[in-house]
Amino acid sequence: MKILAAKKILKVNDQLAADNRAKLDAAGVFGVNVVGSPGSGKTTLLEALFAELHAGLKPAVIEGDIAGLIDAQRIEALGVPVVQINTEGACHLDAAMVASAMGELDLSAVDVLFIENVGNLVCTAGFDLGERLRIVVLSTPEGDDKAVKYPAIFQGSHALFITKTDLTPHLNFNAQRITADMKCLAPNAPVFQVSALKGQGIPEAAKWLAEKVGGR
Amino acid sequence: MKILAAKKILKVNDQLAADNRAKLDAAGVFGVNVVGSPGSGKTTLLEALFAELHAGLKPAVIEGDIAGLIDAQRIEALGVPVVQINTEGACHLDAAMVASAMGELDLSAVDVLFIENVGNLVCTAGFDLGERLRIVVLSTPEGDDKAVKYPAIFQGSHALFITKTDLTPHLNFNAQRITADMKCLAPNAPVFQVSALKGQGIPEAAKWLAEKVGGR
Repeated sequence: MKILAAKKILKVNDQLAADNRAKLDAAGVFGVNVVGSPGSGKTTLLEALFAELHAGLKPAVIEGDIAGLIDAQRIEALGVPVVQINTEGACHLDAAMVASAMGELDLSAVDVLFIENVGNLVCTAGFDLGERLRIVVLSTPEGDDKAVKYPAIFQGSHALFITKTDLTPHLNFNAQRITADMKCLAPNAPVFQVSALKGQGIPEAAKWLAEKVGGR
Repeated sequence: MKILAAKKILKVNDQLAADNRAKLDAAGVFGVNVVGSPGSGKTTLLEALFAELHAGLKPAVIEGDIAGLIDAQRIEALGVPVVQINTEGACHLDAAMVASAMGELDLSAVDVLFIENVGNLVCTAGFDLGERLRIVVLSTPEGDDKAVKYPAIFQGSHALFITKTDLTPHLNFNAQRITADMKCLAPNAPVFQVSALKGQGIPEAAKWLAEKVGGR
């Protein structure tokens, strides 16, 4: 019974996600679902990517958090349109929440819509939001064993961004190990190693993303 | 309807958790539920605490992970009794899982049972496992804003362990900010700042824990 209920919820979500995707496509907007642990550096990565995205590409952001406005305020400070979703306890965004938030944006003025999910390496894996691309963010201090422990989120993602590489000299982190694990789980997904604070790896990542958006 | 269903599940869990607690009490075992993000350093903290716990206190561990045996193998290497729970997708441990795992341990040979939950700062908050104490682990690279973003898990915990303090010189992390937030959410919970790798703060934390266990 519980499994059936879960399947039904996911089926409804899949339909709403398809609606979101169709709406974004019609408006020429490329959706990117950004997932990762709490504190993996999702917002800081977005801030760094904005600075490198070509001037012709206009971003917007939907911020998902249990509570608070911290991330939305950071995005707003950059002059980027942003809508904050407070899930009030829910552990992931779903397509219905994103549909509501999309209604608050002027999509005709947006090229790429980043949807920053709730910090969660488990529950976000099961919910399509209507994106064209899902990026999983893993920070070096979290350790190189996370793909083994949380396979679903890596398996369903289109790229892995290893963040906070500036901390690697102070850690026992083997980038080759997590890259090999990601290649097993998602053979076609590129792996980017970046330090958003130092700007390292950001131009290459932004170039790849711009190509994806350009192909929409 | 959804809320009722969730309430019913939680009610069943609460009853099972009470059973676990009674069973642990009868065996003279003090249960500790350890929660935190993926990669916050929960296992490394346990490894460091074992080394400092007085010889008279015998630990055991229940490890919760979506998949894999990595953490259980680390604990086993220390000669500490350990049971691995693979949740196969579930985002938190529940009291029924812990009851099963407890059945695999010789409780008469245990003084303190650490239950390392799935790495998740959201879903673990709502489920009593039958512990006497819940410790929330936050690593410095996750950032000092996490109590604002994920209040429930901090509010319901009996102590905050700030881990990986050796990385602080390389981060923008304000320990005073998170400590103040924790004091608002859980006024009686002590805050420990530790570096498990360097051994800093571990003796004080182990002393506090031993006192709690001793008062069982």
